Amino acid sequence: MIDFNFVSPTKIFFGREKEKQIGDICEEFSFKNVLVVIGKSSVKKSGLLDLVFSKLKEKKIQYTLLEGVRPNPEISLCKKGIEIARENNIDSILAIGGGSVIDTAKNIAAGVYYDGDSFDFNTHKFSPTRALPIGVILTIAAAGSELSNSCVIQNDSINCKSGFNSDLVRPVFAVENPELTYSVDKYQTGVGIVDIMMHTLERYLQDSSDNELADGFAEGLLKVVVKAGYVAINKPNDYEARATLMLGSSYSHNGLTSIGKRFGMPVHQLEHALSGVYPNVSHGAGLAVLYPAWAKYYLVYDFKKFATLGRRVFDIVGEDDLEVGRKFIEELENYFRYLGVPLTYKDLGLSNVDIELLTNVFSQGKTREVYHREKPMNYEVAKEIFKMVKEG
Amino acid sequence: MIDFNFVSPTKIFFGREKEKQIGDICEEFSFKNVLVVIGKSSVKKSGLLDLVFSKLKEKKIQYTLLEGVRPNPEISLCKKGIEIARENNIDSILAIGGGSVIDTAKNIAAGVYYDGDSFDFNTHKFSPTRALPIGVILTIAAAGSELSNSCVIQNDSINCKSGFNSDLVRPVFAVENPELTYSVDKYQTGVGIVDIMMHTLERYLQDSSDNELADGFAEGLLKVVVKAGYVAINKPNDYEARATLMLGSSYSHNGLTSIGKRFGMPVHQLEHALSGVYPNVSHGAGLAVLYPAWAKYYLVYDFKKFATLGRRVFDIVGEDDLEVGRKFIEELENYFRYLGVPLTYKDLGLSNVDIELLTNVFSQGKTREVYHREKPMNYEVAKEIFKMVKEG
Repeated sequence: MIDFNFVSPTKIFFGREKEKQIGDICEEFSFKNVLVVIGKSSVKKSGLLDLVFSKLKEKKIQYTLLEGVRPNPEISLCKKGIEIARENNIDSILAIGGGSVIDTAKNIAAGVYYDGDSFDFNTHKFSPTRALPIGVILTIAAAGSELSNSCVIQNDSINCKSGFNSDLVRPVFAVENPELTYSVDKYQTGVGIVDIMMHTLERYLQDSSDNELADGFAEGLLKVVVKAGYVAINKPNDYEARATLMLGSSYSHNGLTSIGKRFGMPVHQLEHALSGVYPNVSHGAGLAVLYPAWAKYYLVYDFKKFATLGRRVFDIVGEDDLEVGRKFIEELENYFRYLGVPLTYKDLGLSNVDIELLTNVFSQGKTREVYHREKPMNYEVAKEIFKMVKEG
Repeated sequence: MIDFNFVSPTKIFFGREKEKQIGDICEEFSFKNVLVVIGKSSVKKSGLLDLVFSKLKEKKIQYTLLEGVRPNPEISLCKKGIEIARENNIDSILAIGGGSVIDTAKNIAAGVYYDGDSFDFNTHKFSPTRALPIGVILTIAAAGSELSNSCVIQNDSINCKSGFNSDLVRPVFAVENPELTYSVDKYQTGVGIVDIMMHTLERYLQDSSDNELADGFAEGLLKVVVKAGYVAINKPNDYEARATLMLGSSYSHNGLTSIGKRFGMPVHQLEHALSGVYPNVSHGAGLAVLYPAWAKYYLVYDFKKFATLGRRVFDIVGEDDLEVGRKFIEELENYFRYLGVPLTYKDLGLSNVDIELLTNVFSQGKTREVYHREKPMNYEVAKEIFKMVKEG
């Protein structure tokens, strides 16, 4: 176990109709003048936004709306949000949505206290020193941003997608009502499950710096998320399954499953290159396509841990670790197939993928050599993995 | 999954020599005038207290010492601490020790803002409305008070030991250096492991309100704590084992393994009666003696979950759930035997145990019917369980 500092201070309000308590909750956290951040239109159509406004009004809490956050959220809207926040003396932010909306809120929260370009946080030119408190009403189980310290933003003008981590932007509260995710369609549910699993799988297979407690949490989380995914993908209104996915999303990315471990996200690095070069590729879909290829490449270096995953997550029986590890990857692909998420470049809508370009973009990343100590994921390895992805 | 609110805001500073950062840490949390609370003498002898004082002085942080906390901490010392805190305008508390010291700090932290008798919190006459921030330097892996919202205090004058729960008294930080627990002797290490396991086991077997995610975390935690216990009991200086126990202690009692579950602690209720009637019985030792008897009584009502524990925690193989569940209890007793903790009334130094009196005291408790819905643990059941404990 390596030395670490860890804090996950977000208060979770979990359960049926919890969003109706938003007035009381904002009051509990002294939110007096709130910037409400939302995506395109679904929270308007569903009536959730009106509900929130009425609850804030009841408590005489002021609010200003910032709408229009898109998937792969763009820095320009963050900058607009920072201006609005300053002009209106905003003291807090309420994000209603999923990862994109929450990450937009995070950039704004820190950007209000920074005179420069708030994309500087994401390019690591400047670290946040202070941030407005952020609250969340979660509407999709996927990114885990509701409890995480990470914020990924796209900058279209320089064609760059990049993230920063700061405990200052961890939300102070997250309202999680699984019923709000009943309307998430089958495809988004599937790639959401992939995203949840990847946040844990990426932390699980990490060099030599294991922490058995964190790994035990990870195995438990993966097992129940897989099981809940089988149900939720066919029964979108199954409360228990949606609840497990929602809570699984939060605990996949708050850092619990990587406490005491060296921490890198090799497949995320590959995926950032993929969706960087091909912007129509969504994050979860890209991860689903890349992970099996990555795992097949690294199986021989970490077969004992792959085997443990096989036994714990998919109940695979067998004595031979390498074989059980191989079966784990096979079962994972079968599971992804069941979920209906992309498995090949063709599934992503790509043909004649430019492996050379992908590898070059990957090589510009900064943390690519975290994994594996015996075989760092350098240019050659990444190229090989991009090649190993099935064409179609 | 039942609805719940959950927050575990304690920042953990984990690793070798972390206590040397206490000056910086206190500064980070704006501790300016600190009441330092300790037990009898070990932190003085070890030099830890002097180290802390020197680090506080370096940062010009004022401090006042309150010493003499005993096991089963007494309310009179809390009251003394409240007086000292008020007289010295204390703004924060630093507890250096284990559960007793931390719980004393918690009573003081809330008591400073209450005009009445601070034992009122523990008898549930009054709920804390405000509390001083508490920091911890942990020196034993056992009680889990470093991350929990619970505070158990003894009142000798009315022969009452009772606890309250309030998120207001969750420590704001916990400094955890596993090396500080190398000196914990074999017996205390053993009963500490029992305490850690019990906090998770008690949350695991809970009526019908299961949450598979919390249960998955619990199974992972129990498995690695058991494994670390095998090592630490014989190799007190094994860093990894001590680290797993320390982190296991914290996550056994912060509530993570009971999120979304109905929450009671039936064996703790029995144990409070046992150590209430026989004050020389320590908490962990009492739990070790009572749990197997309790489990044998309830095996038939929950054999599927006992079987899951058997398979996950002790790798017991078998198809028959009742049989695997029975073997789990057997293996647990074998494990306790290996740890060298008490297993019988005789081991606790008791003879001619007054079952009638125990049951009467138990019946005065307030949450005794949480478990099990099909067979609530009423007077008759408790009496039967007290009888089932081996005499010697």
